[in-house]
Amino acid sequence: MSTTPETYAATERTVPTRSRHRASYDKDLVRSILDEAYVCHLGFVRDGAPVVLPTLFGRVGERLYVHGSTGSRPLRAAGDGVTAPGLPVCLTVTHVDGLVLARSAFHHSLNYRSVVVHGTARQVTDPEELRTALDALVDQVVPGRSADSRPGNAKELAATSVIRLDLDEVSAKVRTGGPDDDPEDLGLPYWSGVVPVRGGYGTPVPADDLDPSVALPGYLASL
Amino acid sequence: MSTTPETYAATERTVPTRSRHRASYDKDLVRSILDEAYVCHLGFVRDGAPVVLPTLFGRVGERLYVHGSTGSRPLRAAGDGVTAPGLPVCLTVTHVDGLVLARSAFHHSLNYRSVVVHGTARQVTDPEELRTALDALVDQVVPGRSADSRPGNAKELAATSVIRLDLDEVSAKVRTGGPDDDPEDLGLPYWSGVVPVRGGYGTPVPADDLDPSVALPGYLASL
Repeated sequence: MSTTPETYAATERTVPTRSRHRASYDKDLVRSILDEAYVCHLGFVRDGAPVVLPTLFGRVGERLYVHGSTGSRPLRAAGDGVTAPGLPVCLTVTHVDGLVLARSAFHHSLNYRSVVVHGTARQVTDPEELRTALDALVDQVVPGRSADSRPGNAKELAATSVIRLDLDEVSAKVRTGGPDDDPEDLGLPYWSGVVPVRGGYGTPVPADDLDPSVALPGYLASL
Repeated sequence: MSTTPETYAATERTVPTRSRHRASYDKDLVRSILDEAYVCHLGFVRDGAPVVLPTLFGRVGERLYVHGSTGSRPLRAAGDGVTAPGLPVCLTVTHVDGLVLARSAFHHSLNYRSVVVHGTARQVTDPEELRTALDALVDQVVPGRSADSRPGNAKELAATSVIRLDLDEVSAKVRTGGPDDDPEDLGLPYWSGVVPVRGGYGTPVPADDLDPSVALPGYLASL
């Protein structure tokens, strides 16, 4: 019944230098943007230079888990945050919702929803947490899938690197609506409006070696 | 008629530490992945920490142009590479093509195509190059659109920040095909295969104030 939404505390680096009215720290909004995605772009610093890699992530409450299978040395060296300091990262998730076509080239834009998380990534070393994280990574892609596949065995868990990033220094940014043309351009003879961008799934393609008696599960049919 | 494709020279940081067989330096492949996108994730270092922001880009030959409207201080301070050293960046573009569902949780994966560009970003200061870059940014989103909108005027060009990144240290990474289950898992009773991921566009929505006599242009109807 609260009228005040839960928010993340804004910090110097989560307040954008431009379009501040599009920024939000609302936890529900941040979660909804994260949960519609399963791929993030993870940035870290290697030898003083930035590296940005696409990778899978999963959310469990206020923690994100990122698959460290990139095998990158800095990620492997991140450490558990106790015996090693962890790795400063920036994790970004973006959805494009529409192409915004204005009469003027200058006012062309996108409708989008993005989340940027700053923080320190730590290796997950606790076996129970690792198992929870791996389930979350699979279920982020297809909800319900982890319960309908063979769980990782000891050898696989040992071969899997997962890092954790707490949701603490977080912001969302959202643009919605039509083009913002200047008043003097409204009469120009150019089409103006929004082209919606849609995501979706095609018909699932069974593996060549799938036993034909295995039916398509409901969570895929309804995806 | 050449049988040897043009390639980018591999460097230490464009050779992945894992899944090397998925890496490619083929220029045609890199261009095709870039040209199917208009949003990239741009990484740079600010106060020693990584920052990753989604932003529009356009390609002109072997140059990428990135909209600097993020207003970020490091981007504005990048300089032209002559009087200022420019800004080390990493620009990444990712397409997800399919969800790869294996019998084992461990072998779940994605089919994807990505490009990672490392280099030094420089501010575009030449007015002609700036105009070319802005057209490219608009046409990357909707091919043909820059010729069917009002070009930027002097005031708008002065207010627009664009940075250039040359395609030099570049790699692509691609996964295709079905799941790679272990032989002993093939008989498990879990559905296995690939769910295609599709992108697309909805019906264009005219701006509220669009003159109804302005028809939808062909390049949008065929998008």
